[in-house]
Amino acid sequence: MSVYVNNAATSWPKPECVPKAVFDFMTGRGANLARGAAAKRDVDTLDMVMECREALADLFCGYRDCDPRYVTFTSNVTESLNVVLKGYLRPGMTVATTSMEHNAVIRPLRALEKKGINLEIIKCDDRGRLDPRSLELLIESKTIDMVVIAHGSNLCGVIQDVKSVGKICKDKGVPFVLDTAQTAGVIHISASDLGLSALCFTGHKGLMGPQGIGGIVWEPSFAEKCSPFVEGGTGSFSDEEYQPTRMPDKFEAGTPNLPAIAGLLAAVRWIEETGIETIHSREKELGERLLKGLIHMKGIEFHGPSDMENRLPVFAVNFDCVDNGTLAGELADMGIETRPGLHCAPLAHKTLGSFPQGALRLSVGYFNTEEDVDSTLNQLSRLVDR
Amino acid sequence: MSVYVNNAATSWPKPECVPKAVFDFMTGRGANLARGAAAKRDVDTLDMVMECREALADLFCGYRDCDPRYVTFTSNVTESLNVVLKGYLRPGMTVATTSMEHNAVIRPLRALEKKGINLEIIKCDDRGRLDPRSLELLIESKTIDMVVIAHGSNLCGVIQDVKSVGKICKDKGVPFVLDTAQTAGVIHISASDLGLSALCFTGHKGLMGPQGIGGIVWEPSFAEKCSPFVEGGTGSFSDEEYQPTRMPDKFEAGTPNLPAIAGLLAAVRWIEETGIETIHSREKELGERLLKGLIHMKGIEFHGPSDMENRLPVFAVNFDCVDNGTLAGELADMGIETRPGLHCAPLAHKTLGSFPQGALRLSVGYFNTEEDVDSTLNQLSRLVDR
Repeated sequence: MSVYVNNAATSWPKPECVPKAVFDFMTGRGANLARGAAAKRDVDTLDMVMECREALADLFCGYRDCDPRYVTFTSNVTESLNVVLKGYLRPGMTVATTSMEHNAVIRPLRALEKKGINLEIIKCDDRGRLDPRSLELLIESKTIDMVVIAHGSNLCGVIQDVKSVGKICKDKGVPFVLDTAQTAGVIHISASDLGLSALCFTGHKGLMGPQGIGGIVWEPSFAEKCSPFVEGGTGSFSDEEYQPTRMPDKFEAGTPNLPAIAGLLAAVRWIEETGIETIHSREKELGERLLKGLIHMKGIEFHGPSDMENRLPVFAVNFDCVDNGTLAGELADMGIETRPGLHCAPLAHKTLGSFPQGALRLSVGYFNTEEDVDSTLNQLSRLVDR
Repeated sequence: MSVYVNNAATSWPKPECVPKAVFDFMTGRGANLARGAAAKRDVDTLDMVMECREALADLFCGYRDCDPRYVTFTSNVTESLNVVLKGYLRPGMTVATTSMEHNAVIRPLRALEKKGINLEIIKCDDRGRLDPRSLELLIESKTIDMVVIAHGSNLCGVIQDVKSVGKICKDKGVPFVLDTAQTAGVIHISASDLGLSALCFTGHKGLMGPQGIGGIVWEPSFAEKCSPFVEGGTGSFSDEEYQPTRMPDKFEAGTPNLPAIAGLLAAVRWIEETGIETIHSREKELGERLLKGLIHMKGIEFHGPSDMENRLPVFAVNFDCVDNGTLAGELADMGIETRPGLHCAPLAHKTLGSFPQGALRLSVGYFNTEEDVDSTLNQLSRLVDR
């Protein structure tokens, strides 16, 4: 028996079309991008990459009528966040974030802090929720040059009120950067409606694509203000010894991860066909079942929201009788795959009161079944009762 | 008919085991790295990634008995070079490079120049060769803090005398960074024998792996001096809000490109089984055949070395009667895939005297046949004669 309830780390399995698209690209086409002579395979690659940008611009409701040039590919959301934060923030600026962030936000900010950027960390409540009013008060009390937050917590599943945050940032004229690592593909997100300056995403979680690909959807004038992160050959403006300023070339250099782009395109098409609403309600259904079983378990300490309102099916728990690492190891021996520990989010654990011991994280995904949830609950009960 | 003679852009086809390994990883395993609970799949991924680091450390004769921790994965050689150059160079330092570099070296250096780093570009001769003595004279005349050069030219195939360059750098105590984009996998390279501070490689050319993966083999004390390029979650030291200083975590953050690492591992194993010497002599044989046919063609202008001594089977040519872009387009219509233009190397074209018009580049690989070479030559002759 194998039950995968670690979808917050990477979704698995992928829709069948995804590995197939990767394989087909590698065996059937394989041409590089803009580094050929317009042979059929070169044109096919060019089309495929543009089609993937278009699909992502549509999915995330990008700016200028979903202009695909404002979609940048990176290798993961961590790189996306590094590109945006380091591309925009300069010494003397102040960036605001929350106490529920993943190290993908905290670690680049801590590095920037050493270079003279000021960091304001807004404390969330003990369920992990950000009160947008506290952000508003902060912005009213001092100059804030950027707000960066995670849409959904990788630890306890809380979804922040990004609509309110977006409105505040828009009213105050502060660039708003959203880390959608846990929400892209499972919740409808409109970059333009939220007024995001940059939407950072990863391909291998809710988007159902391969590992190794992520990206950014940019607000055009914000993209213009950011400096490039990686310079190099772009297959364009090849007479120039300087990185082009034109999009999408500005933020992409070197041979792209084309097999993964092929896979991501197939994945986004699968999401379009399946419907984000369908995916979301199925995940909510499974989440409710898991939550209901967990909440009454003997000796459980439940971190994060205790209902399914504004949350992902990602649950962080502890039991008073046994260490979460031991528990995860024993579950793994039974074929139930979870994740214990600190989940690259020490600050979030501190906020929820689960630092330094961490928590056992259970995260279900679209391809889980009721049986998966039930056997996870049964095995967990057995271990805890024992 | 389809003849692929654009292997300098990306090698194609890949050995069958490569797309298969990617597919198998995505469908059969797919676990993330160090973000699980030591279930079997988690351990398998961990083993696979470490095995790939070991294979690369062995292939490139890394330091400390090929310590795999000093192999960093990046998305391509462009990122590798950005990591090394931006991680080490500080305002006031001077970096020396050559006039034969790809924009993967030139563009990050031009960006660094704007931040106060001094740039010395040593002119190569009109065949593209660097005279190591000119580097030595430069180092004797002023303080040079780093030397960065390409091992083999992506434009005209010239291979630089890296043994001499390595000796000079070692004697003078200057860090030596090598861009092996065109040579890794087809020429034996020993990072430790050459005294490299960092060997930057890409996976998708001579190494026969997928696009989307590259890396760095570090000299340990040099790695210690470089700052991280991307900060974020590492699945390690998760109680820390700062990027770990321990290798390999220091230079890797976020979910790695695991399908591509699986593919690269299969590719390196294929290279080990086939033998670099076998690959090299086969490519040389095909290169000689192509060179012999090209050199006597009517109206040809041949850029770069006119013999097979110390060169790759990468040829840059022009014909007095027809523009290289037109020629490449017409060849593409016949199914012959080449690359015209400037090849992301404006400075190299200036050195060879082919700027701004560029050149037609023909690059053969291990999987080409004598028939490929002959039909390329035949079609090219026909077009030129006409």
